[in-house]
Amino acid sequence: MLELTKDYLEKLERAIEAGKDDELRRELVELHPADIAEIFDELEGEQNSYLYRLLPKDLGADVLVELDDDLRDKLLSSLTSREIAREVLDRIDSDDAADMISELPEQKIEEIISHIEDEAQASDLIDLLNYEEGTAGALMAKELVKVNQNWTVSQCIREMRRQAADIEHVYTIYVVDDQEKLLGKLSLKKLFFGSPTTRSLIKDIYNQRELQAVLPEDDVETVVKIMEKYDLVALPVINEAGQLLGRITFDDAMDVLREESDKDYQLASGISEDVESDDSVWMLTRARLPWLLIGMAGGITGAYVIGAFDIEKNPGMALFIPLIAAMGGNVGVQSAAIVVQGLANKSVKTDQIAKRLMKELGVGLLNGLICAAIILLASMVLSFGTALSLTVSIALLAVIVFAALFGTFIPLVLDKYNIDAALATGPFITTANDIIGLIIYFLVGGMISTMF
Amino acid sequence: MLELTKDYLEKLERAIEAGKDDELRRELVELHPADIAEIFDELEGEQNSYLYRLLPKDLGADVLVELDDDLRDKLLSSLTSREIAREVLDRIDSDDAADMISELPEQKIEEIISHIEDEAQASDLIDLLNYEEGTAGALMAKELVKVNQNWTVSQCIREMRRQAADIEHVYTIYVVDDQEKLLGKLSLKKLFFGSPTTRSLIKDIYNQRELQAVLPEDDVETVVKIMEKYDLVALPVINEAGQLLGRITFDDAMDVLREESDKDYQLASGISEDVESDDSVWMLTRARLPWLLIGMAGGITGAYVIGAFDIEKNPGMALFIPLIAAMGGNVGVQSAAIVVQGLANKSVKTDQIAKRLMKELGVGLLNGLICAAIILLASMVLSFGTALSLTVSIALLAVIVFAALFGTFIPLVLDKYNIDAALATGPFITTANDIIGLIIYFLVGGMISTMF
Repeated sequence: MLELTKDYLEKLERAIEAGKDDELRRELVELHPADIAEIFDELEGEQNSYLYRLLPKDLGADVLVELDDDLRDKLLSSLTSREIAREVLDRIDSDDAADMISELPEQKIEEIISHIEDEAQASDLIDLLNYEEGTAGALMAKELVKVNQNWTVSQCIREMRRQAADIEHVYTIYVVDDQEKLLGKLSLKKLFFGSPTTRSLIKDIYNQRELQAVLPEDDVETVVKIMEKYDLVALPVINEAGQLLGRITFDDAMDVLREESDKDYQLASGISEDVESDDSVWMLTRARLPWLLIGMAGGITGAYVIGAFDIEKNPGMALFIPLIAAMGGNVGVQSAAIVVQGLANKSVKTDQIAKRLMKELGVGLLNGLICAAIILLASMVLSFGTALSLTVSIALLAVIVFAALFGTFIPLVLDKYNIDAALATGPFITTANDIIGLIIYFLVGGMISTMF
Repeated sequence: MLELTKDYLEKLERAIEAGKDDELRRELVELHPADIAEIFDELEGEQNSYLYRLLPKDLGADVLVELDDDLRDKLLSSLTSREIAREVLDRIDSDDAADMISELPEQKIEEIISHIEDEAQASDLIDLLNYEEGTAGALMAKELVKVNQNWTVSQCIREMRRQAADIEHVYTIYVVDDQEKLLGKLSLKKLFFGSPTTRSLIKDIYNQRELQAVLPEDDVETVVKIMEKYDLVALPVINEAGQLLGRITFDDAMDVLREESDKDYQLASGISEDVESDDSVWMLTRARLPWLLIGMAGGITGAYVIGAFDIEKNPGMALFIPLIAAMGGNVGVQSAAIVVQGLANKSVKTDQIAKRLMKELGVGLLNGLICAAIILLASMVLSFGTALSLTVSIALLAVIVFAALFGTFIPLVLDKYNIDAALATGPFITTANDIIGLIIYFLVGGMISTMF
């Protein structure tokens, strides 16, 4: 793995300035495209264009595949439609090709496709561009090796050789019938190491069991789930008629898994757009503003709640406002997080709402009793007075139990209506629990103060 | 993919009660081990033991690999050491075997190993058990196909056939020299589809470039990072001398990625142990208590802060306590989350603390100014009075800027000292920012009140 040191980058920059093309080319062709992409990430736009022009076309295309979207778009904009079609798209997998141009203006896409020489390739690409983002269809590649069940082993090997020429990695060989219907997988191991006779028919040696496949409209989370569960290196995509359309490979599944987990993490942290630490100040600000606005709306509502309970008469109540608000939010987030994860790995089912709430009631009561006991003891010892200590303790128990139930209930309901439950863990639950916690606190305070 | 319906499970349960062994066996052998594991997850312990005994040994062993730890341990405890050695471990991959018994008591492990017949297998297992959890060594399997660079193609194919017999998936063929030193990979595609002559030497056809490998002590996050970056289906593990020790496959990398992301998500949500929604009430409570205790300690500190500023003289200040506390916490969590993710995918480097803080200052100022302007306008319109409106607005700006810097700084420092930065996003940042936010708020309030 290449270590991108400062020294190394400076050496490259000096070579670029000095125009040492041969030296640079010799250096770059030894690198993995993913490493070159990392270098591009550290250099300036002009330096990248310079280096890109030095790369052999195949390597250049592979580097484009590895680049971040914005860097790639910059480099692509310096190429003509014809260059993109013949020097880039022609040299990469169909799924990468579709990804690369899918965000371009409609007209530019058509122009690029018109320059593709191979008709089958063009129609594959058009096909892939039609699938919605987030579906199996948008993730799949058209490149795969398939053989007919009626072929003999030697026919099959001949055909495989021909097909494999265009494919970088042959993970799985798919067996189809005369109607292109997917029947099963042929194990390379069985084919080459099991030494079947060359005249055996494929239908007698392929594996008919354990065939998992998805439809192009299935969502990517389902794809990842299936590939994880069955440890699949590639997953075939079929249409309603069972015909083989393409395949999704493990590396795409890993990318999806990484993206989904980043997204959930950001949502839980109150970040509403997919941002990275090296995005612009304005993008980072914009991604963070929505939660802050929700938080402010909650804060103003909180001011009204406190105002309504006439804090002037009992100003001591103010002391524990932060505690009550914080605990409501914390418990709510914890409960929601467990449900969200359970939903993500399908261990929680939405039809078990009642059961789940009963259990959460138990957890809430247990946590609530422990916390209430501790705070009662602590505030008595710290001489906050009996009335206030009792108020805080009782209110805390109620707030924790309520927040636990609320934090469980909301994501389950969201999921039932097909809304991303991860939305619930961040701003919404915290803010709502803050306010409801305050109401409970002042209600309990009002009751207790009449007793003393 | 098997749909586990209620009907299906009930049918199985009835068949178990009626002792319809043949029918059950016929049903189960058609299923994928991962599906059987899912069934076991839904049934009772006794039903599982019953079904397990019905399974052919190979399938039974595969099901054990797929099971959750606690279910597996229950089933294993009903087997003798000899049965575990000969009917389970002998039939699964070395990495799964090591996982399966690594948590058992030392003595039981030794007993099991003493029953393993194949000495090489036993020593592989002992070897794997020695690596610390969370390292590449603990993740790797010993099963792989390797060939010597000096062999001819036909010799190589003969050897590969022999080696592959014991290996479920042959993803990569490794090329070594006479000292077992890893030299490169041999592409199956080149070997079978490239049609080299049978007398070609391996050293003339294998791929010497692009060889990624890790040491057994490298941590699993590095492993996942490399496999993601280079889209590797398998990653070789070598020792300091460069000798090939084992390989890590993509499915293990995906499992690690899933676990790490679950862990980070839980930490960010204030859950301190790895729990799942179907764990016991007590385990769920215990995992959530630490954050709640930190939150309470913060709340009590907050009470002292408010008490110190003599709220009785200016009780209106109480109204916006929730707003200030919530906003400090929110901004801190947002900032920390972006740094934590940046650290995780290596786009943030710890040596750039100053640069990162400058940028965060920009984001904080921008967010702070927007929020301060909104709250000033809102609280004036809502007639909270000039002094209070000014106080909240100025304090909010200061709190947001401070929380943004603090939320960025803490995870960077933690990472510098090799502490998991994800720890920072949950309880710690929120609670600290709550308190510091309150202090800022009351300081600003004190100054403003002297002016009016």
